[in-house]
Amino acid sequence: MKKSALQKARASYQPKLPIVLTGPVKAVAGKPTQSVANQTEINELFPCTYGLPEIKFEKNTAPTAGKPVNVGVILSGGQAPGGHNVISGLFDGIKKIHRDSRLFGFIMGPGGLVDHKYIELTAPIINEYRNTGGFDIIGSGRTKLETKEQFDKGLEIIRELGINALVIIGGDDSNTNAAVLAEYYKANNTGVQVLGCPKTIDGDLKNDLIETSFGFDTATKVYSEMIGNIQRDCNSAKKYWHFIKLMGRSASHIALECALQTQPNICIISEEVEAKNLTLQQVVDQIAEVVAARAAEGNNFGTVLIPEGLIEFIPAVKALIAELNDLLAAKAEEFAAVAADKQREFIISNLSPENAATYESLPHGVARQLSLDRDPHGNVQVSLIETEKLLSEMVGKRLAAMKAEGNYKGKFSPLHHFFGYEGRCADPSNFDADYCYALGFNAACLINSGVTGYMSSVRNLVKPAVQWIAGGIPITMMMNMERRHGEMKPVIQKALVRLDGAPFKKFAAQRKDWAYNTCYVYPGPIQYFGPAEVCDQPSLTLQYEHKGK
Amino acid sequence: MKKSALQKARASYQPKLPIVLTGPVKAVAGKPTQSVANQTEINELFPCTYGLPEIKFEKNTAPTAGKPVNVGVILSGGQAPGGHNVISGLFDGIKKIHRDSRLFGFIMGPGGLVDHKYIELTAPIINEYRNTGGFDIIGSGRTKLETKEQFDKGLEIIRELGINALVIIGGDDSNTNAAVLAEYYKANNTGVQVLGCPKTIDGDLKNDLIETSFGFDTATKVYSEMIGNIQRDCNSAKKYWHFIKLMGRSASHIALECALQTQPNICIISEEVEAKNLTLQQVVDQIAEVVAARAAEGNNFGTVLIPEGLIEFIPAVKALIAELNDLLAAKAEEFAAVAADKQREFIISNLSPENAATYESLPHGVARQLSLDRDPHGNVQVSLIETEKLLSEMVGKRLAAMKAEGNYKGKFSPLHHFFGYEGRCADPSNFDADYCYALGFNAACLINSGVTGYMSSVRNLVKPAVQWIAGGIPITMMMNMERRHGEMKPVIQKALVRLDGAPFKKFAAQRKDWAYNTCYVYPGPIQYFGPAEVCDQPSLTLQYEHKGK
Repeated sequence: MKKSALQKARASYQPKLPIVLTGPVKAVAGKPTQSVANQTEINELFPCTYGLPEIKFEKNTAPTAGKPVNVGVILSGGQAPGGHNVISGLFDGIKKIHRDSRLFGFIMGPGGLVDHKYIELTAPIINEYRNTGGFDIIGSGRTKLETKEQFDKGLEIIRELGINALVIIGGDDSNTNAAVLAEYYKANNTGVQVLGCPKTIDGDLKNDLIETSFGFDTATKVYSEMIGNIQRDCNSAKKYWHFIKLMGRSASHIALECALQTQPNICIISEEVEAKNLTLQQVVDQIAEVVAARAAEGNNFGTVLIPEGLIEFIPAVKALIAELNDLLAAKAEEFAAVAADKQREFIISNLSPENAATYESLPHGVARQLSLDRDPHGNVQVSLIETEKLLSEMVGKRLAAMKAEGNYKGKFSPLHHFFGYEGRCADPSNFDADYCYALGFNAACLINSGVTGYMSSVRNLVKPAVQWIAGGIPITMMMNMERRHGEMKPVIQKALVRLDGAPFKKFAAQRKDWAYNTCYVYPGPIQYFGPAEVCDQPSLTLQYEHKGK
Repeated sequence: MKKSALQKARASYQPKLPIVLTGPVKAVAGKPTQSVANQTEINELFPCTYGLPEIKFEKNTAPTAGKPVNVGVILSGGQAPGGHNVISGLFDGIKKIHRDSRLFGFIMGPGGLVDHKYIELTAPIINEYRNTGGFDIIGSGRTKLETKEQFDKGLEIIRELGINALVIIGGDDSNTNAAVLAEYYKANNTGVQVLGCPKTIDGDLKNDLIETSFGFDTATKVYSEMIGNIQRDCNSAKKYWHFIKLMGRSASHIALECALQTQPNICIISEEVEAKNLTLQQVVDQIAEVVAARAAEGNNFGTVLIPEGLIEFIPAVKALIAELNDLLAAKAEEFAAVAADKQREFIISNLSPENAATYESLPHGVARQLSLDRDPHGNVQVSLIETEKLLSEMVGKRLAAMKAEGNYKGKFSPLHHFFGYEGRCADPSNFDADYCYALGFNAACLINSGVTGYMSSVRNLVKPAVQWIAGGIPITMMMNMERRHGEMKPVIQKALVRLDGAPFKKFAAQRKDWAYNTCYVYPGPIQYFGPAEVCDQPSLTLQYEHKGK
C-alpha cells in the first residue's frame, strides 16, 4: 500500500484514552436497567440479557493477572470514519490483558462469521491501519445475523478459533442483531460473549449513555468543509443557488450539524417537516419565498441543505407512496396494458383525491419514476428520487408563477450536489480517532469483565479525553418493539432530531437571519496538527446537547 | 463575518516570499521576446507592447525612495484559491513602496471598471481576508474587456481615482484582455500600466516562465481528498464503480494531477483521446474491459476519473455536434414540425452516415438533449451533458453485451460525482498562499519598475519559497492567433496536457497496474500546521515537470 504523506504522519498519532483505562480497571455495576419501551415484550424476548445493570469502569487497586482472550471482530453496515481505530483499540486492549490474546477479523461483514472467512489481525497489520479512515482492513457487509442457522454456523468457527468474545461494530440494526446473538449464545450456555460498538455517520444511534455514534464527527466535518467551500464560491460569483443533499435517510442530524457549522441560507429538517405535517409544496413555497426575498435585495444566490430522507418524512408523500404501492399491486395487469402516454392519467384517476393532488404536484419525471421504478417487492423506490433536483425544479416552477404575479424579480440558476460517500471513509478527526480507540479499548475491558449483550460506552465527550467515562450499557436497555416487514420486532430505537433539543433550537433561533442575510461560515478541512481549538472540537450537536442538559 | 476556528488560526499565517522580494529590487531586463507563434500578426496588433524583454528582479543595493502609487485590482472569471492572497501581497507590496499608496478593488469583475463600481481596500479589509479562499473580498465576474468604449469608460474612473496601474487577476482570456488593454493605454499615452496575474484552477495557463497558475494546487488537493475518501469507501464496501467528473473543460490537467495523487483504476485524458482519434464507443469499451477484468478477479468496484471537457475532445462527437448545429439551423422549421416520437428518426436520416452512427450510439436521453437543448445562438449545449452518467450508462450496456457473449461475469453498480465548485474557493494550501502572495507582491514591484503588458512571474516553484525567482514576462510572448467566433484573434495559447510531458508519461507508465490491481492512495485533507512533507508539497504535476526538464 503506497501511503500518502498525511497517512505516514498520522500513523504515529497516539489516540488519547480516558485516564481510567490507562491502568487496571474493575467493573462497577449500577442499578438494573429497563428497555426504553415495551418492557414486558423485550424482557420475554431477552430472558438472559434483559435488565442487566449499567457498568462503569473504575480504577482497580488490586488487579489479578489477566488470561489470554481470543476475540472476533466484525464491521457491519455502512462505513464510518474511525472503524480502524476501534479495532486497533480493541487489539491494544486485549494485548494489555495478556500478550497472548489474539484478534480475528471476519471478512466483509457479518457474512464472514457465517461463511467462516477471517484473518488473524496481528500487530503488523494493525499498525498499517492506525488512525486511518475506511473499513478496508477486513471490509464490511450488510448480511443480517438473524437466524438460528447463522448463529450455529458462526459458533462453529468461534469454537474452531477458540474465540471467547465477538465485537460487532455497527449501527442500530447491527447492534440489535448483536443483542439477539448475545441472548442466543447465553441461552445456549456457549460462554461466548457478544458486545456492540456504536457506529454510524447518521448520528441516530445515541441516548443518555451513548452520547454519539462514531464517524458522525468526521463525516459532518468533511461535508461542512465542502459546504463551506461551495458557500464561499456562491458568495464570490453571486449567481447560483446550490441545492446540497446530505446522506442520512432516517434522521436529519447530519444536515443539522452541517447547518450549525456553515450557516446556510436554508436547511430542511425532515423531523420538523413531519411534525408540522407540511406538504411538499409547502416546503417548496418556503424555499421560493427565501429565494424571492433575497432576490429583492439583489442576491440571486444561496444554499439549501436537504437531508437525504426528506421525501419519506413528508406525510402527504408517504401517503401517496403507500397508496401507489397498493394501487400498482392491485391493478398490475391493468396498468401494464395502459399505453405509456396514458399512464399518468390512469394513475391520477385511480388515486384518492388527496394523493392524486400530491402526484400531480410532482414534476412529471419524478412522478413517472414513482410509478415505474419499483423494487423486487413491487415497492416504489424512494431512494432513487434525486430530491435536490426535485426541489429545485419545483422551486423554479413556483418562482415562475410568482414572477407572473409580480411577486418575484430575479434569476434562479440552481446547481446540485450530493455528499455522502465523500465522508464515510475520511481519515478520522482527532475526536473520532480518540473516541474510536477508546471504544475499542473499552470493549476489551468489557470482555475481561465477562459481560455479554453490552454496548461499549464512552461518555462525557465534550470534556478532554482523559476525563471521559468508560463502561458498558445493556443493549436491551435501548430497545423497543417496532413493525418491520409487517411483524413486530425488538429493535434499538432510532434517535431522530428532537425539535425540543438544544441543537435544533439553536438552529431555529438563527435560521431567519441566515436565510435573508448572508452569514456563511467556512470551516475548512479537518486539521490534525494545529492548535486545539482547530483540531480537537467535538461536533456542535454534541456541544449544544451537553449544554442543554 | 463569523469566522471558523481554522480561519482565525490561519489569519496570522505569514506567507513566505522569495528572498529577493524581501528587500529593494531592481528590474533586470533580459533579451527581447517573441510570441509563441504568428509573430508578424501579433507584432502588428501590439506595436507598443510586443517584443519587450523578460524581466528578473535582483537585489538593489542603491535603492531610491519610492513614490506613492494608486493601484486598481480586478478579479476576473472563475474563482481560484489564493485570490485574496494576491490582493494582500499587492497591498503589502505597494505599501512597502510608499505608505501612502492606495489600492482600489473593482467590484464583481471587469464590469466594475466599466461601471465605476469599486471600494478602497484598506488594511482592516485586507486583514479580514488574508489566507482565505474565495473571491468575495470584491467579487468576480466574466465581463470581457474588449471594446474601445469599455477601455475609455474605464479610463474615466482610473483618472478620477488617480490610478497608476491596473492588476487583472485572471485566466488566459482575462490576461489576453489585459494585454489588449495595456496596448491601448500605452498607444494612447495614458501612462496607465496594466499587469496580469496567472489564475485558474484548470492549470492550462502555463509555460516555461509561468510554471503554474494559482489555485491549481489547492483545487486538485481538495478533489484528491474527496477522490481518496471515495476510493477508501469503494475498497471497503467493494460493490460500486464510482464515475467521478472533474472540472476543467479545456484541459485535463486537473484529472491528471488527481490521478497521480490518488491512483484510480481509470483516468481518461481528453488530449490522449483526441490524439488517438478515439470514438466515444472506444473510450467506453476500454472502461468496460477494465471493469470485466477486475470482475474476473472478484473485484466489482473501481473508480473512473473523467475530465469535464472530454466529450468535446472526441473527434467523432465534435463532428456530430458540428453537423447537428448546421442541420438544426438549416432545417429548423421542418424539425419543429416533426412529432416528438419521430424526431430521433428525422435526425438520423438527415445526418451523414458516420455522424448518424455516433448519434445512434449515444443513450437516447443524451441524444435527445443534443437535439433539443440549444443555446441562444442555436448551438448544441455540450456542457449540459452529464458525461459521468453518459459513460456509465454506455459501459453498462457494453457489459450487458459482453455478459451475453460470455465475456463478463459480475455486478456493475455505478455511482456518480462531479467535483468543481467544492475546490474553487477552498482555503489556499500553503503553496498557493505563498505563491499568490508572492505574485501580488511581485506585481507591486513590476508597477514600481514602470512596465506594462506584463504578467507577474514567480518561478522555481519546486524549491522552497525563499529560492523562488521573481520577475515579469510580456503577455504578448504567450500569444498566438486562434479562430474565435469565426474571426482570427490574438489569444494566449492554452497549455493542454502534453502526451510527451513527464506528468502524463508518469501516469501512462503506471496506469495498467492501477487498473487491474487496487493501488489507491488516500491523500486526506490539506494540512496547514503539520510537518513540511505534509503541508508544503507542490503539485505532482509541477514536481514531475521540473524533474522532466
